[in-house]
Amino acid sequence: MKLVYSGKTKDVFALEDGNYLLKFKDDVTGTDGVFDPGANTVGLTLEGAGRAGLRLTKFFFEALGQKGIPTHYIDANPEAATMTVKPATVFGKGLEVICRYRAVGSFLRRYGMYAAEGQSLDAFVEVTLKDDDREDPPITKDALAMLGLLSAEEYEVLKALTQQIGNIVKEELAKKNIELYDIKFEFGRIGADKQIALIDEISGGNMRAFKDGKYIEPLVLEKLMLEG
Amino acid sequence: MKLVYSGKTKDVFALEDGNYLLKFKDDVTGTDGVFDPGANTVGLTLEGAGRAGLRLTKFFFEALGQKGIPTHYIDANPEAATMTVKPATVFGKGLEVICRYRAVGSFLRRYGMYAAEGQSLDAFVEVTLKDDDREDPPITKDALAMLGLLSAEEYEVLKALTQQIGNIVKEELAKKNIELYDIKFEFGRIGADKQIALIDEISGGNMRAFKDGKYIEPLVLEKLMLEG
Repeated sequence: MKLVYSGKTKDVFALEDGNYLLKFKDDVTGTDGVFDPGANTVGLTLEGAGRAGLRLTKFFFEALGQKGIPTHYIDANPEAATMTVKPATVFGKGLEVICRYRAVGSFLRRYGMYAAEGQSLDAFVEVTLKDDDREDPPITKDALAMLGLLSAEEYEVLKALTQQIGNIVKEELAKKNIELYDIKFEFGRIGADKQIALIDEISGGNMRAFKDGKYIEPLVLEKLMLEG
Repeated sequence: MKLVYSGKTKDVFALEDGNYLLKFKDDVTGTDGVFDPGANTVGLTLEGAGRAGLRLTKFFFEALGQKGIPTHYIDANPEAATMTVKPATVFGKGLEVICRYRAVGSFLRRYGMYAAEGQSLDAFVEVTLKDDDREDPPITKDALAMLGLLSAEEYEVLKALTQQIGNIVKEELAKKNIELYDIKFEFGRIGADKQIALIDEISGGNMRAFKDGKYIEPLVLEKLMLEG
């Protein structure tokens, strides 16, 4: 088992059968010790964050699998904080795909002239480049096609999948009276037919969730969703 | 004649017949005394810049009119540095629409991970909000529609017009062996049928143009284009 990549929140190991093992870390993104799902830096280390993130990821990826939505997920071992996944190639050096239900975060920082804080956004999808040096710039469908990252047809598949998955997560949260404000995903191409599939994780660190108008920390979200 | 708006590079007066008079100033956008068509601040004042910008604007708007492209242009008086235009309403508080033929400026700052400086971009269109406080954020077709600024159908009209007009300017420059790298436009809705039409100006201050690999200043561009 060979370490092939060490990321901000997980390490990636190559398995002998061609699949990959993701080892979830206890580090979460943020700035100056405050959790922020949109941040590019590791802001703090929370004991148990890796296992909690993996448990929630397992829950959501298995729910998506049951609904026939393509993901890279094979199985997970929460005790070891590891998840086995199919090999995937990302678009360029990676994209983040955000699905927004309420105007907060970078959306509000960009479009505050026309949007009020907390305003409903109806599963609005936007794409940013994973590029720490350039602060993850937003990118349009046309630019993705021109730069050879994603064809116009693939963009429509990506957008539809993003809204489908976002809506499933939103519904699962709603069962616990939790409201999803926004969520970010990563996608890749999987298999011989290069099918577009969800990769990475779906944990508290990927989303902003609120209960009774109060923001819920990732570790609390995992407890609310999976315990009772 | 009543002053209704004082902009960075021109003043706008309401005429009694319902049309407007634009008075071109000698100020051009830039930072610290260096001209930059992408800047939000007035960088310097160039003697004669207003008249030169208007002469070039007159030239291009009349060329567009001959090709049946809708603009707000009625006529121009270069000596007085004034242009008479039809009333137009902008999208929200105004958009800038950029047509790119080579990767320079903000395109390169955002997408430098995937584009080399000076790379061909084939009339690539992008839209930014006119919002100095938020540094003119880029915005997608979907976001424009969601925020009520421009419908999906109007976006396609805007994009097609931008490429048509950009290509006409590019061809005119090419006749003088000048290469257009990028150009920014403003559009608005004109008349009872709210037709999308080019507004504002087309001058050296709106574009980056190069000759023999060397950048051409706005005042020099005007001379090269209109004198001989």
